[in-house]
Amino acid sequence: MAIGEFDLIKKYFTTHDSGEGICLGVGDDCAIIDIPPQKQLAITTDTQIENVHFFKGTDPYQIGYKSLLVNVSDLAAMGAKPYCFTLSLTLPSSDEYFLENFSKGLFSLSSKLNMPLIGGNITKGELSVTVSAYGLLPRGKALRRDGACIDDDIYVTGSLGLAGLAVELGYHHIELAGGAFDQCYKKSMLIEDRCEFAVDLLDYAHSALDISDGLVGDLNHILKSSEAGALIWIESIPYAKEFEQYCIDEKIRDHLCLYGGGDYELLFTAPIANREVISRISEKHSVPVSRIGKIKNGSLHLTKHGKMYYQNEKTFEHF
Amino acid sequence: MAIGEFDLIKKYFTTHDSGEGICLGVGDDCAIIDIPPQKQLAITTDTQIENVHFFKGTDPYQIGYKSLLVNVSDLAAMGAKPYCFTLSLTLPSSDEYFLENFSKGLFSLSSKLNMPLIGGNITKGELSVTVSAYGLLPRGKALRRDGACIDDDIYVTGSLGLAGLAVELGYHHIELAGGAFDQCYKKSMLIEDRCEFAVDLLDYAHSALDISDGLVGDLNHILKSSEAGALIWIESIPYAKEFEQYCIDEKIRDHLCLYGGGDYELLFTAPIANREVISRISEKHSVPVSRIGKIKNGSLHLTKHGKMYYQNEKTFEHF
Repeated sequence: MAIGEFDLIKKYFTTHDSGEGICLGVGDDCAIIDIPPQKQLAITTDTQIENVHFFKGTDPYQIGYKSLLVNVSDLAAMGAKPYCFTLSLTLPSSDEYFLENFSKGLFSLSSKLNMPLIGGNITKGELSVTVSAYGLLPRGKALRRDGACIDDDIYVTGSLGLAGLAVELGYHHIELAGGAFDQCYKKSMLIEDRCEFAVDLLDYAHSALDISDGLVGDLNHILKSSEAGALIWIESIPYAKEFEQYCIDEKIRDHLCLYGGGDYELLFTAPIANREVISRISEKHSVPVSRIGKIKNGSLHLTKHGKMYYQNEKTFEHF
Repeated sequence: MAIGEFDLIKKYFTTHDSGEGICLGVGDDCAIIDIPPQKQLAITTDTQIENVHFFKGTDPYQIGYKSLLVNVSDLAAMGAKPYCFTLSLTLPSSDEYFLENFSKGLFSLSSKLNMPLIGGNITKGELSVTVSAYGLLPRGKALRRDGACIDDDIYVTGSLGLAGLAVELGYHHIELAGGAFDQCYKKSMLIEDRCEFAVDLLDYAHSALDISDGLVGDLNHILKSSEAGALIWIESIPYAKEFEQYCIDEKIRDHLCLYGGGDYELLFTAPIANREVISRISEKHSVPVSRIGKIKNGSLHLTKHGKMYYQNEKTFEHF
């Protein structure tokens, strides 16, 4: 006999709904949470859809993990400490293999971040996952997009281009030696979160966001909000080591680092005076940071080894 | 030229994102809100999918309205005062007719309730709307499902059966005189919210929920949580006036009132001593309430004019 909606929720999604400040978890009309005094609540929501955000046939563990990661990444982009989340899951059938592995992936990250699932719903339809995630911020503090100042250094965490490379290989069915697609794609689904690093950055950065749509497109969000321009040194952009492993052409690499989305690294700006403390925070959390340019007046310019670099790409948008 | 995702958000969804306590609305990685001292936050999320929750071709205004209403109904079911909400919208194309009317329906309810849209996302895919809604509760107070006590009266607001009737007519393409389907369906999409009524009920009811899956099924959630049984007098259940207008058979009527979902009326229990105050709250808000039974030991029994009524239905579940 097929297992029903309420039993599915009970079996896979009610074992991680308690924690400090969570007054009521899964199972009533609403969840109820406390917000500690002197804190504000950061709220974000994001949707992952089969064949749009991940390929059909993707390991459900990875789908579960990444559905939460993309939201946690928005919390990190504000410097908010993960608190809890809700899940709206739409799937074609009550596929227990899917649910078991999806929930394992989801809770692997939720447990690591001590971030309980407090509510949600399961509906029948095309596979789609919407998570809303909640984080805590000290009152009046947040790494907003509109805080960049002229002469700020521009930093990026980790490395870029891998998610874009995985999509290119998968979308065009390009076979490279050494199982390139499988390796790149899996790594691009199981991205490391930057939460602890970001919380420590709160006092030292002027602005931040996470790179979901591509470095240039997302940097432009900061520039527009902050009414500033920027100079980016392409040779300083940290690219994924897989580009060398699979001997990807330098032009393709630059393109994917500049315009490929889905890396969920942090892009942030900070005053020159904070270089040392940022370096210490980077070491403390073992999160590599690279200084890739600076905020200036005017518009965005890209250079490579001192020469102007042509840019004509628009950022990824769904329509 | 097709309008892009970010321009769509700007054009249709950023004009209603401010309000008291909303520190940062649409346009950054997260929204940021304040929670007043002595308040707790109630959180709910629900998804509406084409061909599951509404028929293909439904007026986008109605889809927008109802997508928020079903969430607001969960807030009312806890006695929480609406605060703000986020929207995750998935749609097949950047259809501006749809977006204009969808947003009008959505904001008609959001404006009435003074409940700004603080964030969200738009994605490409099959039409699906996930809203997460936030409400404020006095600390430690909430109309939970587990609070029903033996001898409590059982009440329901408004009338039942209309949404079930609309689905029956629409799903089986049954044509009745007088445009029955169109009239019933439209009304079942533009359901009145019960928020102000519910907030006043906080001190006087023991338990509550909103009837989304059918009276019997939802009452059973209260009974299970509260470890109690109940007696329901079917002749006391308030049915929609459309059942008489369209001469629907009494057996069908009873069935739809007991098992038809989607009416989003409140079902609540309260001590006998509170009958008078509940009647006053009902008058104050012009929200009809009907006393349809009582909480007792044992299990759930239905009677009609003093005779036992057979029940064998399971509640609606998606799988």
